[in-house]
Formats: sequence, C-alpha cells, structure tokens
Amino acid sequence: MNYQAIGTIRTPYTEVTGAPYQSAEPEEQDDRLFYVELNDEYAEGLYRLDSFSYLYLLYHIDRLKKPCNLQIRPAWTGDRITVGLFASRSPARPNSIGLSVVRLYAVEGNRIYTSSLDVFNGTPLLDIKPYIRDLDTKNDANYGWIDDLPDRDHLMLHIKGVPHDY
Amino acid sequence: MNYQAIGTIRTPYTEVTGAPYQSAEPEEQDDRLFYVELNDEYAEGLYRLDSFSYLYLLYHIDRLKKPCNLQIRPAWTGDRITVGLFASRSPARPNSIGLSVVRLYAVEGNRIYTSSLDVFNGTPLLDIKPYIRDLDTKNDANYGWIDDLPDRDHLMLHIKGVPHDY
Repeated sequence: MNYQAIGTIRTPYTEVTGAPYQSAEPEEQDDRLFYVELNDEYAEGLYRLDSFSYLYLLYHIDRLKKPCNLQIRPAWTGDRITVGLFASRSPARPNSIGLSVVRLYAVEGNRIYTSSLDVFNGTPLLDIKPYIRDLDTKNDANYGWIDDLPDRDHLMLHIKGVPHDY
Repeated sequence: MNYQAIGTIRTPYTEVTGAPYQSAEPEEQDDRLFYVELNDEYAEGLYRLDSFSYLYLLYHIDRLKKPCNLQIRPAWTGDRITVGLFASRSPARPNSIGLSVVRLYAVEGNRIYTSSLDVFNGTPLLDIKPYIRDLDTKNDANYGWIDDLPDRDHLMLHIKGVPHDY
C-alpha cells in the first residue's frame, strides 16, 4: 500500500525539545501552536469540517528512533509491566501510522487549528476524519491493563500529557 | 509512505452481498462472523490486548469503485446535503485508510473476534490500537453537520448500521 502526504502537521515539538507521550487534554489555546496545513489542492474538502468539535488525525510517524518490538515495557509505567505492541499506543509499530483525537478550534483557508498532539513539527498528514458522537464515543470503554496499575489515575495524567506536580 | 498488510479482516460482506455504510452498534455475537486474522509473525504483539473492551482497527480500503471527490452528497442523507470529503467518513479518500472502533470479544491465538464493521471480507489490516477510556471517549463531541438534519436520530441509525423498521 502506497500513500502520499496530503498536508503537514505543525507543532512546537522538534527533535531538540522532544514530544510528550500523548496528546494533552484539549484546552482553549490562544497561541495557535498546533495546526494542520492541508495541501492547497485538497482545501475544498474542508467544507463544513468546522461543524465538528473533534477530529481524528492520521499521520505518518516519520522520525522514530526506537525499534519495533512485539512486546514492550511502556516507559511511563516505570518499566513495571510488559504488554504486546498492539495492546499499546507505542509509536514503534509495523506500519508507522499515528492516530490522534484532537479538538477542532478553527478552519481558516487550508489551515486547521487544533488542540495539542504529540507529534514532531512537519509530520506528514495522511487523513482527517470527523469524530462523530455515538459512533466514536464509547462510554463503556475501559482502561485495559492500565486498570491493573495501582496508580492508574496518576499514570493517566502522564498518558494524556497533563502537567501535574506530584 | 509504503505500508504492508499485517493481517486480514474477516466479515460476511462480499462484493455480492455488499457492506453497510458504517459499523453496526456493538452487540454480543455468538456466531463469530467478524474477526481479524493477524499474520502469525505478529501474534506475540497481542499479549494483554484482551484486557481492552474496544479497539481501533486501521485497514486499507482495497475494493472501492467510487471516485474520490473533494465534495460529496452522502447517500444516507438522501443526497440532500453537500459536505467536504474530510467532514465525512466516505471511504473514497486521497489515502484509502479506513478506521473503525470495534468491541473486542475474544483473542484466540492470532484471531481477534470483534463486533461488526463495514468492510469487505479479506480487507488488508494495517494496525490495531487499543481504544482507551478518557483518551478516546470524548463526551462533549458533537454530530457536526448531521445535527442540522431534521431527522438526525433516524439518520444516525443508518450511519451506525442499526436495523430499524421506519
């Protein structure tokens, strides 16, 4: 399968600053640090995208230094637990396709301003899909093996990239 | 970007029977009609996947006859409304990557039994990611432009593939 980038994701994260583990909780941002630049030839496809509050972004994880192992020990758990790669959101996967749910703030021309996501500046965009209430909001979803960790609530702050002092 | 199939999605849908528009609502299935067959060499990566109630499946939409138009009139709305491709979940996209949220029923060897999804039998699998409560469950998500349709609740049954008599 051969795919082409349809745009570029802009973030403040560079190889020097690093990127957090997962998307931070959506919060209103006046600084417009995170946006998608869709290639001009696709701009017409954004019509009425601004009616949605959340989007899925699919992208190619293009600057990964970690090897793809089938079982991993997620760093944010303090290396305490081993899980299969497909039971994790590790970016080192057989196919380097990243998926993030982001809040949509504004569409201006071919730019889509969003909440933060944990990708490097310049990451190639593969697709934008609307996140649709009912279809994608699963209220009976669980935390999987994360539930077995005694400090789950604290670790979820790490997963979600929420700053905290403890 | 070049990706390889890591497995195959098995469903009852063929070019003869057709496939519904979107995943049906998850419901307990004894008939095991829907499953993923992961290639043997990746089976180790399924360790602890069974702790999750929902999964994301990413796949290559390989049997699409529709052209990719940047603005579309979704058939399930009765052609009443025009929206941008990226404001829709139409399968005819610049990059033919499909995304479904499915309920996980069981993992047995390299087989993952799931709730129904609207893909043809034999669809190439690109990735499996766990759907994680909080990270992926957005309770303030909306219906976007679908909200503007007077018969939204009825149309959502079509989107979700829920059988109904009216």
